Amino acid sequence: MIVVLKNNVEEEKRNQLIDWLKGMGLGVHISTGESQTVLGLIGDTGKVDAELIDSLEIVESVKRVSETFKCCNRKFHPEDTVVEVGDVKIGGGNFAMIAGPCSVENEEQIVGIARDVKAAGANMLRGGAFKPRTSPYDFQGLKATGLEFLKAAKQETGLPIVTEIMNINDLSLFDDVDVLQVGTRNMQNFDLLKELGQTGKPILLKRGLANTLKELLMSAEYIMASGNENVILCERGIRTYSDYLRNTLDLGAVPMLHELSHLPVIVDPSHATGIARVVPPMAMAATAAGCDGLIIEVHNDPAHALCDGAQSLKPDEYAALVKKIKAVREVI
Amino acid sequence: MIVVLKNNVEEEKRNQLIDWLKGMGLGVHISTGESQTVLGLIGDTGKVDAELIDSLEIVESVKRVSETFKCCNRKFHPEDTVVEVGDVKIGGGNFAMIAGPCSVENEEQIVGIARDVKAAGANMLRGGAFKPRTSPYDFQGLKATGLEFLKAAKQETGLPIVTEIMNINDLSLFDDVDVLQVGTRNMQNFDLLKELGQTGKPILLKRGLANTLKELLMSAEYIMASGNENVILCERGIRTYSDYLRNTLDLGAVPMLHELSHLPVIVDPSHATGIARVVPPMAMAATAAGCDGLIIEVHNDPAHALCDGAQSLKPDEYAALVKKIKAVREVI
Amino acid sequence: MIVVLKNNVEEEKRNQLIDWLKGMGLGVHISTGESQTVLGLIGDTGKVDAELIDSLEIVESVKRVSETFKCCNRKFHPEDTVVEVGDVKIGGGNFAMIAGPCSVENEEQIVGIARDVKAAGANMLRGGAFKPRTSPYDFQGLKATGLEFLKAAKQETGLPIVTEIMNINDLSLFDDVDVLQVGTRNMQNFDLLKELGQTGKPILLKRGLANTLKELLMSAEYIMASGNENVILCERGIRTYSDYLRNTLDLGAVPMLHELSHLPVIVDPSHATGIARVVPPMAMAATAAGCDGLIIEVHNDPAHALCDGAQSLKPDEYAALVKKIKAVREVI
Amino acid sequence: MIVVLKNNVEEEKRNQLIDWLKGMGLGVHISTGESQTVLGLIGDTGKVDAELIDSLEIVESVKRVSETFKCCNRKFHPEDTVVEVGDVKIGGGNFAMIAGPCSVENEEQIVGIARDVKAAGANMLRGGAFKPRTSPYDFQGLKATGLEFLKAAKQETGLPIVTEIMNINDLSLFDDVDVLQVGTRNMQNFDLLKELGQTGKPILLKRGLANTLKELLMSAEYIMASGNENVILCERGIRTYSDYLRNTLDLGAVPMLHELSHLPVIVDPSHATGIARVVPPMAMAATAAGCDGLIIEVHNDPAHALCDGAQSLKPDEYAALVKKIKAVREVI
Repeated sequence: MIVVLKNNVEEEKRNQLIDWLKGMGLGVHISTGESQTVLGLIGDTGKVDAELIDSLEIVESVKRVSETFKCCNRKFHPEDTVVEVGDVKIGGGNFAMIAGPCSVENEEQIVGIARDVKAAGANMLRGGAFKPRTSPYDFQGLKATGLEFLKAAKQETGLPIVTEIMNINDLSLFDDVDVLQVGTRNMQNFDLLKELGQTGKPILLKRGLANTLKELLMSAEYIMASGNENVILCERGIRTYSDYLRNTLDLGAVPMLHELSHLPVIVDPSHATGIARVVPPMAMAATAAGCDGLIIEVHNDPAHALCDGAQSLKPDEYAALVKKIKAVREVI
Repeated sequence: MIVVLKNNVEEEKRNQLIDWLKGMGLGVHISTGESQTVLGLIGDTGKVDAELIDSLEIVESVKRVSETFKCCNRKFHPEDTVVEVGDVKIGGGNFAMIAGPCSVENEEQIVGIARDVKAAGANMLRGGAFKPRTSPYDFQGLKATGLEFLKAAKQETGLPIVTEIMNINDLSLFDDVDVLQVGTRNMQNFDLLKELGQTGKPILLKRGLANTLKELLMSAEYIMASGNENVILCERGIRTYSDYLRNTLDLGAVPMLHELSHLPVIVDPSHATGIARVVPPMAMAATAAGCDGLIIEVHNDPAHALCDGAQSLKPDEYAALVKKIKAVREVI
Repeated sequence: MIVVLKNNVEEEKRNQLIDWLKGMGLGVHISTGESQTVLGLIGDTGKVDAELIDSLEIVESVKRVSETFKCCNRKFHPEDTVVEVGDVKIGGGNFAMIAGPCSVENEEQIVGIARDVKAAGANMLRGGAFKPRTSPYDFQGLKATGLEFLKAAKQETGLPIVTEIMNINDLSLFDDVDVLQVGTRNMQNFDLLKELGQTGKPILLKRGLANTLKELLMSAEYIMASGNENVILCERGIRTYSDYLRNTLDLGAVPMLHELSHLPVIVDPSHATGIARVVPPMAMAATAAGCDGLIIEVHNDPAHALCDGAQSLKPDEYAALVKKIKAVREVI
Repeated sequence: MIVVLKNNVEEEKRNQLIDWLKGMGLGVHISTGESQTVLGLIGDTGKVDAELIDSLEIVESVKRVSETFKCCNRKFHPEDTVVEVGDVKIGGGNFAMIAGPCSVENEEQIVGIARDVKAAGANMLRGGAFKPRTSPYDFQGLKATGLEFLKAAKQETGLPIVTEIMNINDLSLFDDVDVLQVGTRNMQNFDLLKELGQTGKPILLKRGLANTLKELLMSAEYIMASGNENVILCERGIRTYSDYLRNTLDLGAVPMLHELSHLPVIVDPSHATGIARVVPPMAMAATAAGCDGLIIEVHNDPAHALCDGAQSLKPDEYAALVKKIKAVREVI
């Protein structure tokens, strides 16, 4: 950490600051220029409150030199992490094609869609049983029953299942779920993250509505520091002043997260755009940007879907998209 | 709900849509213009997925006419709600002055600050025991011990206490807490909101980092629809591209929330700005905008605070501010 | 335009509004429901101030039905516009590869880079002569001299040239420039747009820093309504709370603009990201999203570039990228 | 400027960088830690491209130490600037009450409103003659004729006039205008700023839609570096994801700009909110935050205003507000 002092600071005040920093167990390297002094702090600066120091009267500015994320940092783990979900691998050149409806509605629906997306080329099934909804009056999901239907679909097709967990007290219901999804609104529900860190199950961590890449990585760090290294990051669109699309898909996050971290990065073009006909070009773009997988909403009857039908592809549209995705992957 | 069809839609497709809408139990009022047809949907349109309809090929646009929030809607409850916390009232002309440190650090600290802020004019004490931090390596609060220290401060000063709850499983620890705070990152942790709706305790609900006013009100609605009407809304700054201040304090939210809802609205200028010297002008501004209270960080030794020291006022600065706040309140 | 009145409005007030609307020359179609009245306005509603009506006491809400952009609207011009720049075509399946340095620095530099990018596969040359810079103390471009050097590079290589015009009074200097660029900061400099609308030259219109797609189209409309239909839209990243990248490249804009308008849409991944090593994946992604061209910064010596060197590719990096772009284009 | 090198950089590469920096005329102060080297650059670092250095392989990070704005920087000019407009002073404790219609519509209207706002307590008149509108089909202002009507209102009431200039070629028309306004969309129209810098007239510089405080100050710097020190900064709301209000009024900008700069700061609550009934509380809040003046839209017949009627106060509402503003000013 670098602390730049203001011009011509009184020596007494300067020394007080240096003593206080040393009192926190830090080494302080002092570099004095013509009119400016720069302090280099050495040691466990993760505990130092940069904002506090920045607010001191004699301090001009503060800059952290080292990253505060460790477990997920590529610097300390140069090879790509490959998350294994049954036979399916994600990351390190392995591509996940996750598809399914926004909500599980009944057994027939989810088993039918599972068959369809498998035939189309998906290697994992998604479907919401516990649904976070902005309004308490909107459909909240079939919950435990929905999980049962998902398991039936898994049994029928062999596809591993991905579904969202909203409350750690429901964990026992998720025993047969293959990947636990942490939704956008819970990205910084730190208690949930810590407890998921103790499960050992793969976690699909969605980026929060307006969170930075660093915050996403710090949330992954919560899971990993609790002992679970199977984290899949997911870009799903951020909130801006967008007028025609629901959110703004931030595809720059894909190469940037790959540079910062060894974790696999997948993309959700369905929630990012909210419009089914924009999903295919964004799925193609995400693939070309180098993502490790796509999670896409597919419904056999979007017009009657209980939620988010507007953004769902039909199975044949998905099948056509899968072919194009494969072709793009061959190019890059 | 108003559905505007595209120009010159085929009659057959139009009738299919109308039949489908009627099949959902809705009344459909058809208004045919020269080239355009407008459908007015009557009945429980809260269940209708506007985005889905909007995505249909023959639909030009959809507009909801009625608000989807009910319990917190001023239309159905014109008088201001007054939340009572012991002898302290908030809303309907009653002003809450909540003050205290970001984190409870030890008994001496919190009792000392409680005395100081009471003497300065505060009528409620804040202090974090469970701390949501972006990094798992940052100080996470004294937890249960912190709550004990808060209670000691309450015993000593008589000030009711406000503190954040992050996990519903900790609820039993909060028996003697007067106001439960839902933090920014949990504004859409719907399971937590529902369970807090069953407690009957006053809830201080902070606006999420990038949430709209409607989303804030819908989260209040989760608590109220579960049976708890004691909700205090809190504006605490939103995330933008701000360069010098941590967040952007959205004071327009104060009159707008008052117009939309009967719930009291307080403001947190400390987290909104992140800079202690900007807190007083923003506290004054919030008061002039008509808020029902202020929650402000005060620390007797900001330079050694375990978190957010940079944004804390000293007790004498707070006392000076309280006087000015009172003078502004007399004017408006 | 649809005007929804509040419940149980007094008939007299309702009639006053209707008379006032008719007084503006509009037809008013009245549709009365059980408790709600909806007015459909017919005629030239482009002149009606929707916000004003929305603010009237008896009005619940207002919705525009028809788009306010006409010249650039795909509804009225279903086929793709193809802009021709010498032998180069953009749009309707024709792809523009525009490359060159951020700033023209001297004749040798720009001629050298022009040769390099032509050899690499570019079909147009970019280079800034008039440079908009946030600070008045930063390098502002070589201006007229820079234009001369650009023309020399065109003469040498045959590549048409694209360069920014900031001030309409400089127009006479741009006689031999093939495409006039309107920069991000001038997207809503309406006087400039109107005057460029009278030139007949192809205009490359960059999206403003925080402008919506509708605003971008309305700015194109300014140019087109003044008589110039040769407009190329350019997505170049929008301002958000991004932490590692300079801006957020909004690739959803590509399919969405194609749906709304017949104009060609190109993408600038260099300014959007600000980091040279993120440019290739974003260029690939933009291509996969269906854009009609790419404008990319290339410099033969990024370390000594006078501006924006950090985001420039070297010629050999650009050549490698061009090959990949072509492969992606064959797939889609 | 501080350049932090990566751990264990090769000495040769390190020396190349140092030589290159010295080649730019900079002094380089080298500070070597255990594993890290920090370079302090001394001299005219305003010309150094921080992003370029940041992108070099051996560089960990770069931090500017000195501010790049000079003329408007409070560090170099500690006393408040007081801008004089006829007898009216702005800044340094002097408060401007600027009021008037969005657009000048006819002589009777502007003279009438001028009388009304003067009687209500305004000390300056605003009114748009040249109107920047998103759509080319919206009313663009009465232009030169509008300026004539404004002058008539000035003659009648003695109120100095403030009006927007969009095009430097219109400058001669503005001879009798007292304050030239640069609108939101032109905040970074640098050519316009430079030319206004040569006029000597007071300039009211509005913050751009999504511009940072630093960018606003740099634009003021353009005007001041060209020789005109009479700049008034204006906060008028920034673009976010706001759902009920048009923009988000950023009142934190008021104390922050006062800290960074000696220039007066006024606030426009009308454009910031877009809703007349939210204007008074925001005007009060801005005053309490310490602004040096308010620019407020007032219209004697908002329902028939040609633009932005929805956000205009009536003269009696404005008069009531002026009284409250004065009372707040007495408190602070």
